[in-house]
Amino acid sequence: MSALPAAAIALAGRLFEELRLHTTDEPGITRAAYGEGEEFAHALVRRAGLELGLHEAVDVAGNLYLTLPGEDPALPGWIIGSHIDSVPHGGNFDGAAGVLAGLAVVAALREEGRRLARDLTVMVIRAEESTWFPVSYLGSRAAFGLLPAEALETRRADTGRTLREHMEALGFDAEAVARGEAHLDPARIHGFVELHIEQGPVLEREDAALGLVTGIAGSFRYRKARCLGSYGHSGAVPRAYRQDAVVAFADLVAALETTWDGLEREGARATITFGEVGTDPAQHAFSKVPGEIGFCLDVRSESPAVLERIHGELMAQAAVIEQRRGVRFDFGEKTGSTPAILDASLRARFAASAAREGVRAVEMPSGAGHDTSVFANRGVSSALLFVRNQNGSHNPQEDMRLADFAEAVRVIRRAIAG
Amino acid sequence: MSALPAAAIALAGRLFEELRLHTTDEPGITRAAYGEGEEFAHALVRRAGLELGLHEAVDVAGNLYLTLPGEDPALPGWIIGSHIDSVPHGGNFDGAAGVLAGLAVVAALREEGRRLARDLTVMVIRAEESTWFPVSYLGSRAAFGLLPAEALETRRADTGRTLREHMEALGFDAEAVARGEAHLDPARIHGFVELHIEQGPVLEREDAALGLVTGIAGSFRYRKARCLGSYGHSGAVPRAYRQDAVVAFADLVAALETTWDGLEREGARATITFGEVGTDPAQHAFSKVPGEIGFCLDVRSESPAVLERIHGELMAQAAVIEQRRGVRFDFGEKTGSTPAILDASLRARFAASAAREGVRAVEMPSGAGHDTSVFANRGVSSALLFVRNQNGSHNPQEDMRLADFAEAVRVIRRAIAG
Repeated sequence: MSALPAAAIALAGRLFEELRLHTTDEPGITRAAYGEGEEFAHALVRRAGLELGLHEAVDVAGNLYLTLPGEDPALPGWIIGSHIDSVPHGGNFDGAAGVLAGLAVVAALREEGRRLARDLTVMVIRAEESTWFPVSYLGSRAAFGLLPAEALETRRADTGRTLREHMEALGFDAEAVARGEAHLDPARIHGFVELHIEQGPVLEREDAALGLVTGIAGSFRYRKARCLGSYGHSGAVPRAYRQDAVVAFADLVAALETTWDGLEREGARATITFGEVGTDPAQHAFSKVPGEIGFCLDVRSESPAVLERIHGELMAQAAVIEQRRGVRFDFGEKTGSTPAILDASLRARFAASAAREGVRAVEMPSGAGHDTSVFANRGVSSALLFVRNQNGSHNPQEDMRLADFAEAVRVIRRAIAG
Repeated sequence: MSALPAAAIALAGRLFEELRLHTTDEPGITRAAYGEGEEFAHALVRRAGLELGLHEAVDVAGNLYLTLPGEDPALPGWIIGSHIDSVPHGGNFDGAAGVLAGLAVVAALREEGRRLARDLTVMVIRAEESTWFPVSYLGSRAAFGLLPAEALETRRADTGRTLREHMEALGFDAEAVARGEAHLDPARIHGFVELHIEQGPVLEREDAALGLVTGIAGSFRYRKARCLGSYGHSGAVPRAYRQDAVVAFADLVAALETTWDGLEREGARATITFGEVGTDPAQHAFSKVPGEIGFCLDVRSESPAVLERIHGELMAQAAVIEQRRGVRFDFGEKTGSTPAILDASLRARFAASAAREGVRAVEMPSGAGHDTSVFANRGVSSALLFVRNQNGSHNPQEDMRLADFAEAVRVIRRAIAG
């Protein structure tokens, strides 16, 4: 167990506070992808990196790379990276913790006067929260030249402007993104490490500061699904003639809860969430049978087979409900991402580092998606670490103790710098 | 069977068209209570009444009375009345049909040169659609001096202004309403007749132009209910720790469907509707477990005992779901209305009139509330008639054949004028 230079943690603490101060949007904070909050965060981290003497690069999509050069530039380098955008009214630590952990590791090495054999790059990844643009892992895919050109024509949920317009407004090169111009080459990366706050209560319950992630869930999503029935007077349409969209939607929720029950009994892991739901304010009324309801569906699992099975159940149950209730489901466009299995030997290295540092670490899956998926699926040896966090994530109450963050930084430093 | 003077029906047809032209608000029409559309309708009907030589009166709440004087002013008079406001984006005939039927009866009597023994008043009732102000039977209660003073402080859903402000802006006397100043005296009313489009498909199925209503459903309503859980990351909160407001709401919908199934098996009549539903756009996201959902609940029955039983089930089931899902239901304010039984002898008179006119009429209950309830509950001999209508009501597709309307007018004329 080693003491960590206090100055490195103090730096991270100051940067967290700066971020909070400048991106507060009660309740919580908001850092929109390619928006004001993300821009502020990139500028803040860049300034701190330059003060630490790091070399700077920005790719065509606006991802930022701050590099501490190693002794041998021919060796593939380490990357410690994470996103720094947030969901609307989210918490201050989500994403940012991974970036500031990278800076803290570099600051600690600086303070100790250590020099590594390999380059060590802190990567600030753009636009990971797909609540803004309906695209998974936007920034990290663009860094590998893998973002499909049509993603540039998707629109940001709040502004209605396209990704292309937002990129160009900030001076980035949307055309080069469309051409698939890559900044990163998997062969030149020795390992990728992402630290993220845990987004659930497992570490808190297990009394462990650190989680070592075994695999990252993939997903399928319907963001603009609708159930279409028929409006009618609530007191006057006999029950047999109702085409009640809300009742049909409730049937669908119940059907997928039953599917989830079955998966749990078999020990299969998944999550099923209807996060946004609403009747049409232009047409609904308390005295009308609801003729329409819109909803989002988000389904996640580490197993492609489980995802497929839930999707099959969804379609089969929707057809049954359509018959029973006289409604029609219009699911709209399907999006999603592929599950990722993470490198067991790199994970073992982090487990050993945690043991030597006296930090309790537990293995666990990640139900949420992370940019690490993209690196892992490109064949890069990748590790995702969770730091204990109170009150969940993607909400204003999210919290993280700086002491736990310091333990995570110690473990990463030892794993990378020995 | 008698021919109806064509001029009376042509007049009604012209007035329906004028109403539609001036209150169109695609999709459908909108005539807000104490708003522009209702004002236009009152002015239109007033002009038509004065052209027919009727005497005009307006009460302190803005209800309009157009009277054809009878031979003996000492006799209690007939009232043919209905509201003329609409739900947002509703249909053109709802409410208006009852007012224009009254005018058509008067026009027919004029054309035939008939004079009645009793006064015959066409009453244009204010603000029946409680989607605007959360108050049942606002205008008819005010006509009897029965509107509680606190109703004046309720706010219109679209403008946010109070009923008092809206009344005063149009020159009515809110203070007199608050004092309970009555324009109508039950002892001075021989009978009240309301014609309304049917708000369901029963007459269409029964191939009958006319419905004779036996009783009017009462209701209880929660217009601002919420289910409160806890927001969390959709991929990261283990299922046992979720407090998912949408899943809990779906449970409640399912529980009340089961209650309704049970009532139907016993032959008890009721309707249960969740007409407005929505998660909070300021906090929801497709990637968040939903921590809150708002909803409206509208429950109707002709039987006070059935209403009470459903209310008991609602509270019991909500408590069970709160335990199971870790959520809390906040139902907010409860409003509602009392069921009304209608006068059987007056209904028999309309049945006889329909038989003599060769119009097929069927007895049926009304699941929807109507101003007739207020008259009946004041002890006035009251009749509610439905005219066949295609495509339900409270929606833009609502429709009514003028030929069916003419049959209804014939039946009313004969019942009143012999």
